[in-house]
Amino acid sequence: MRKNYLLTPGPTPLPPQVLEAMSRPIIHHRTPQFQGEIKKATEGLKYIFQTKNDVFILASSGTGAMEAAVINLLSAGDTALVVQGGKFGERWTELCKAYGIAAEVIDVEWGKAVDPKEIEKRLKTNPKIKAVFTTLCETSTGVTNDIRGIGEVVKNTEAVLVVDAISGLGAIEIKTDEWSCDMVISGSQKGLMLPPGLGFISVSQKAFKLIEASKSPRYYFDLRKSKKALDKTDTPFTPAITLIIALNEALEMMKQDGLENTFARHKKMAEATRSAVKALDLELFAPSAASDAVTAAKVPQGIDGEKLVKTMRDTYGITIAGGQDEMKGKLIRIAHMGFIEEFDIITGISCLEKVLYQMGHKFNLGAGVKAAEEVFLKN
Amino acid sequence: MRKNYLLTPGPTPLPPQVLEAMSRPIIHHRTPQFQGEIKKATEGLKYIFQTKNDVFILASSGTGAMEAAVINLLSAGDTALVVQGGKFGERWTELCKAYGIAAEVIDVEWGKAVDPKEIEKRLKTNPKIKAVFTTLCETSTGVTNDIRGIGEVVKNTEAVLVVDAISGLGAIEIKTDEWSCDMVISGSQKGLMLPPGLGFISVSQKAFKLIEASKSPRYYFDLRKSKKALDKTDTPFTPAITLIIALNEALEMMKQDGLENTFARHKKMAEATRSAVKALDLELFAPSAASDAVTAAKVPQGIDGEKLVKTMRDTYGITIAGGQDEMKGKLIRIAHMGFIEEFDIITGISCLEKVLYQMGHKFNLGAGVKAAEEVFLKN
Repeated sequence: MRKNYLLTPGPTPLPPQVLEAMSRPIIHHRTPQFQGEIKKATEGLKYIFQTKNDVFILASSGTGAMEAAVINLLSAGDTALVVQGGKFGERWTELCKAYGIAAEVIDVEWGKAVDPKEIEKRLKTNPKIKAVFTTLCETSTGVTNDIRGIGEVVKNTEAVLVVDAISGLGAIEIKTDEWSCDMVISGSQKGLMLPPGLGFISVSQKAFKLIEASKSPRYYFDLRKSKKALDKTDTPFTPAITLIIALNEALEMMKQDGLENTFARHKKMAEATRSAVKALDLELFAPSAASDAVTAAKVPQGIDGEKLVKTMRDTYGITIAGGQDEMKGKLIRIAHMGFIEEFDIITGISCLEKVLYQMGHKFNLGAGVKAAEEVFLKN
Repeated sequence: MRKNYLLTPGPTPLPPQVLEAMSRPIIHHRTPQFQGEIKKATEGLKYIFQTKNDVFILASSGTGAMEAAVINLLSAGDTALVVQGGKFGERWTELCKAYGIAAEVIDVEWGKAVDPKEIEKRLKTNPKIKAVFTTLCETSTGVTNDIRGIGEVVKNTEAVLVVDAISGLGAIEIKTDEWSCDMVISGSQKGLMLPPGLGFISVSQKAFKLIEASKSPRYYFDLRKSKKALDKTDTPFTPAITLIIALNEALEMMKQDGLENTFARHKKMAEATRSAVKALDLELFAPSAASDAVTAAKVPQGIDGEKLVKTMRDTYGITIAGGQDEMKGKLIRIAHMGFIEEFDIITGISCLEKVLYQMGHKFNLGAGVKAAEEVFLKN
């Protein structure tokens, strides 16, 4: 009889429309019928990405799309600038390393956002930098970076700006074109309310020039093949048919809601979560750059963070995330991304209260839920 | 009111159990619950692959798994032997080329199987060959290659044997261990009765040695990462959760049926299809090496092959495949793979008869269906 709630930063809960689409009989991908789906999906993604650029759909998780960015833009021996303020920033560095690309790293303290001025400085000092790899929402720390500010800096240089928006797209604002983002990467299992298995990547004209010049070996993730296929409303290899059809359901929901409402909803849920967490006497991990997609809070002294997350999940069916890598056991991360609304947050906070209480943390029972309710009652 | 039938060599129809699994609420992948799914899936795959080797599950289509084989085994400058008897054999050559690997090609006439003796000869003449890339069932031509015979030849050399069993696994026999296949590649959307989006790859000890030595750049498809993760019942990146859960449903069905029954069923359906096609006065494209997964037949003189396939699909809802690349418009391909049984074949043949009749092809109406029924009536 246990009900399960998913408040993790990917996967996020699936709306009934998506579940229904997933259970339809499959269709063949080389048909006019599926071409209609590709067309609808790419148009819908352009709306979400806020771009006129091509958006390609890959049959891979988000990391596959990140790899596609690195290998299509750069060749071994090239130099990239990487903003590294968490586990997913580090992934850019690892990808560069794997392909022989020199990664100049801006090491940002976990829990802080990068200062665009630092990027400006590095680009001036090192004119060899061909690409700047950044993260919109660093899922591991709950930080949102100032992509608009970074875009202002990068657009006046020869370098391209690449944004990992895997966590964030569809939850928090990213204006691909207006903010001069040359490549924006995303995945299906976060703001887009789908199961994992699709990667997305938008490509500007400036980026296409590097793609043509890159000497990195590539085949499955070769965006030249993707471009050639998309121009014929096709995919170079067998696409993840079912997920693309479900994507169109999710995109339709988001279109109905409107981007402005979507972002406002995420903002309110984030505000409620942060307010609740503080009312429980927990410290926000990223107070100066808190993401509206996921809230990270420090586990209080004397409380076993891994046990906290495990108890919420295994005893009560509420799955939140713990800390990763260096923050293992030291953080809780509550996602409010995708198909999540206020009473999911209330449920999550209530369960957090219950388990914290049982574990001996001192706070006023009900204070978290009350704080969240206060935010939700505001206009 | 139109009913749709899918008789294509991927995707293949989805069983209700799989559709149901696809529509379940999603679970998080870093949980004991999902670890149970990974464990079940890899054990089930080992049964289907007939192997004790590790089988890795990738979030990609089959081509991604083929790329994983090439880049994990070989480095730029290495030499591989490629059996190229159709579009998917050619894909091995293209992959090698993309990664700077010298591909020595055995050009097999489309519609014919490779002679294992030719492979033996090439391996003797060129001791630099480190890997032999082959295809179990060449989907583009409906040919099944003699993998057992090839295994006999390759196992006594330093080279590893890699088999693209994307079309074929779960439909026709492949004994990974007994036939000394070092890597067997597959995908989800064929014999395994799932939507596309998963790649599979089994790896022998002989292959692992090459994996450790390969200098090809890799990250997303790095099988060293897959191995390290699988040893902890995990995946290196976010897996395609839903597809893996659905995979367990399909694997359970196949286990219930038993491999022997599964192969016998495919054999019978293939025999019925071939018999029907001949009764309609169509010529089999691969009479000497016809696959039990897909039947290819030549489009008769004077009939527009593309129109034939299009009419069956768009007017009657029965999707079969046409020819690819050099055989475009010249072939029809009827798949009998996965969740297909005798009355699907009867339906497909009946529709083929109807459209051939309307297009002016001369044959005895009903002869195809009768021929198929005769085969199905045999014990």
